[in-house]
Amino acid sequence: MAKEKKQEFVTHITPRSEDFSQWYTDVIKMTELCDYAPVRGCMVVRPYGYAIWERIQAELDRRFKETGHENIAMPMLIPESLLLKEAEHVEGFAPEVAWVTHGGTEELTERLAVRPTSETLFCTMYSKWVQTWRDLPMKYNQWCSVMRWEKATRPFLRTSEFWWQEGHTIHATPEEAQEETLTMLEVYREVAENVLALPVYVGQKSDKEKFAGARATYSIEAMMQDGKALQAGTTHNFGTNFAEAYDIQFQSKEGKLEYVHETSWGVSTRLIGAIIMTHGDERGLRLPPVIAPIQAVILPIAAHKPGVMEASNDLFEQLKAAGLRVKLDDRDTVSAGFKFNDWELKGVPVRVEVGPRDLENGVVTVFRRDLCEKITLPLEGLADALKNLLDDIQKELFRQAKAFRDEKTFVAHNMEELGEIVKTGFAKTMWCGDRACEDAIKEQFNASSRNMPFDQEGERFQDTCVCCGKKADKVMYFAKAY
Amino acid sequence: MAKEKKQEFVTHITPRSEDFSQWYTDVIKMTELCDYAPVRGCMVVRPYGYAIWERIQAELDRRFKETGHENIAMPMLIPESLLLKEAEHVEGFAPEVAWVTHGGTEELTERLAVRPTSETLFCTMYSKWVQTWRDLPMKYNQWCSVMRWEKATRPFLRTSEFWWQEGHTIHATPEEAQEETLTMLEVYREVAENVLALPVYVGQKSDKEKFAGARATYSIEAMMQDGKALQAGTTHNFGTNFAEAYDIQFQSKEGKLEYVHETSWGVSTRLIGAIIMTHGDERGLRLPPVIAPIQAVILPIAAHKPGVMEASNDLFEQLKAAGLRVKLDDRDTVSAGFKFNDWELKGVPVRVEVGPRDLENGVVTVFRRDLCEKITLPLEGLADALKNLLDDIQKELFRQAKAFRDEKTFVAHNMEELGEIVKTGFAKTMWCGDRACEDAIKEQFNASSRNMPFDQEGERFQDTCVCCGKKADKVMYFAKAY
Repeated sequence: MAKEKKQEFVTHITPRSEDFSQWYTDVIKMTELCDYAPVRGCMVVRPYGYAIWERIQAELDRRFKETGHENIAMPMLIPESLLLKEAEHVEGFAPEVAWVTHGGTEELTERLAVRPTSETLFCTMYSKWVQTWRDLPMKYNQWCSVMRWEKATRPFLRTSEFWWQEGHTIHATPEEAQEETLTMLEVYREVAENVLALPVYVGQKSDKEKFAGARATYSIEAMMQDGKALQAGTTHNFGTNFAEAYDIQFQSKEGKLEYVHETSWGVSTRLIGAIIMTHGDERGLRLPPVIAPIQAVILPIAAHKPGVMEASNDLFEQLKAAGLRVKLDDRDTVSAGFKFNDWELKGVPVRVEVGPRDLENGVVTVFRRDLCEKITLPLEGLADALKNLLDDIQKELFRQAKAFRDEKTFVAHNMEELGEIVKTGFAKTMWCGDRACEDAIKEQFNASSRNMPFDQEGERFQDTCVCCGKKADKVMYFAKAY
Repeated sequence: MAKEKKQEFVTHITPRSEDFSQWYTDVIKMTELCDYAPVRGCMVVRPYGYAIWERIQAELDRRFKETGHENIAMPMLIPESLLLKEAEHVEGFAPEVAWVTHGGTEELTERLAVRPTSETLFCTMYSKWVQTWRDLPMKYNQWCSVMRWEKATRPFLRTSEFWWQEGHTIHATPEEAQEETLTMLEVYREVAENVLALPVYVGQKSDKEKFAGARATYSIEAMMQDGKALQAGTTHNFGTNFAEAYDIQFQSKEGKLEYVHETSWGVSTRLIGAIIMTHGDERGLRLPPVIAPIQAVILPIAAHKPGVMEASNDLFEQLKAAGLRVKLDDRDTVSAGFKFNDWELKGVPVRVEVGPRDLENGVVTVFRRDLCEKITLPLEGLADALKNLLDDIQKELFRQAKAFRDEKTFVAHNMEELGEIVKTGFAKTMWCGDRACEDAIKEQFNASSRNMPFDQEGERFQDTCVCCGKKADKVMYFAKAY
């Protein structure tokens, strides 16, 4: 296999080193993943972005069903009185609620919130649906969009409206609720790492950072190329908090009335932002093959030469029949160079160049986007070879991202080190557990606690808090965050 | 194959003959397809109902993609000023819009409509995205919920919020737009008839009944068991109406600025109501196998007897592996009789009874829900036999529904006949085309024009209007409608 490095770059994307934030905006705009909507802070997800979201949805949905969950659809509006029942929850969400006050020409007697999240609706319906232990567990999920009136917004990362799934489950015992919370966290980790090629730190959030109304929140945290953290998914154990506020009781096997134990968990279109900022490079996107809408693009080279278009068409049919998501770019209005740049920009994992000289030798030239390398592959058995190559690319993207993340994660023994580390990555610290220390770190370095790994015992490295110096037994990651 | 008629009925559903509307409500409630939400006029789609919707979505979505459409996501809110740009459209929708007036604690400077439909957003974005003829056509669709502030609501048929898809496309020529409008109408007909087993009349709506802002609207119309019509899907050709209001122009091949030609089309969760009211009977639902969440339920009979549970489990694994959607009902808290009723109520197409005596003979007893008949089938090769049986059931449900519809469709030569016919079904009429006659028929019989078949020539049967007696050349169906 001949290999050669390719050195032409798309020059009109702002380099990451110059301005990472502008690079992100450039990439999103040029790849047409999404656009700004005519409503402040909202976005339109365009076909290429939505096709990625559809693949993420399919991968998650399959796993939700395999773990015994069913989908349902709740209304998008919530009466204000329902939202007010759980105190912490209200406090957390009320400031960012969009309110419906009029229906047609009539003013409503009670304001309706456009859902910022649906715990309150699930709780209301669960209290109606559950009677005895036989009805438990109920494990439901919905795919929808939610609205949070954000001041500062960025496409995919923080928009007033975003698309997500929210799972809501109720259980007979605390043990079952905790098991569910951790099972779904593991589903998120597995999808992040194996589907999106995002290495993540898995652990528990601090009390300060947990969900409004939760007893415990867990998260997966990914590192972007600017060293900042992106919370990529969360699961919450509510204990009986909401059950008490919404009166969700069931008759136990022993005939007693008991409160249910509840969980919720969600991931959103934010994951698309994570993919861009983890895998993208100076040429644009690099999409993991598992979720790439187009896995391989076929480019006829010198298409007017005899045999080239026929071979390209044959190859297209053959790869499609083999189950690859493949596109034939037969545009005659743009140059081959334009097409190269275009598909590299869009992050298509593999480009197959079908040219007259290669055809004579029974081969094609294949460009792999992850390494920006060209290799030569025989036409015979190409479908299988490409499948293997796509597997390789998926693994290579994860390997690169993990190497980057591991290189940018350091132990911080004290505040000085912590301040240095969070400039470019994650600081692993020992923390006393006091909110005052989290606040001080936020104040001084604009870094927040991310999560505490489950293997606390094995990860401990000193016994004093990185901030106050008092006794500390908690291992906690800190980072600047999206 | 031994056959025997089964005569036990679930007695707690109101008989259709007594009160069709109450029967509908009973069936929905007892099958847990949906529930009333805590917001007026809104519903919660429960797992069994949503699983049906997921199958409908998958069947439609596949066909949308095969016909060259891509999915996108538009915001749920629309600034009032955008909604006001197309006069007819505003007039049609403004009275039923829910308005957001506050974001967090601030009052908005401009009210935002919760989308009742998204033409105005698509138009706004299309005017931004399209430049030249090379960008055309754009053929997009979105799956979402929309909100229309309805006064009188009924689950699935008319609710303030409902779930649907809305396709919106723009084209360079009027011919292409018309072709698109009719292609999608045919997709709807094909899905209605082959997937949902709903026979439909296909044709064009009158000016009175067309979509607000459309130049022409087409529909598929199904007949429910009470003889009323249910509009099951519509496609619209807007011509350049919206393009002119929203300034969607493109540079043609000849270098001229021209308006695009636009279409939209949609079906909704209303289809679930159509399935219930077309196929349901005194025992509850009868679901077409293609969209049934559970196609076959396995019931162990005398489960304590040796071999029964083993055989049931084996059969479950075997049918699942063969790609059937199958459930094993191994509850030991309810009787076999209860289970029979329960699954018949839920409309599962096939019940497989696994009992000790049958097992000795190497057979199982199979109940088909469409005919309420029992047959005996050999265990060997059961998966294939069941697949064939499910195909049969799908066809039989369509056959029954079509026979019913055809029996209840009559030619009406005059108003007296029309009044009689629409008491129990559809009246096929000759109509002059005047709105005054539609209004008179509505006034006298509460019946509205449904659609005009495409083969006007072939269907004509007199040359005077059913209402005014003047010259008439339009064949039009009239019926009472949901």
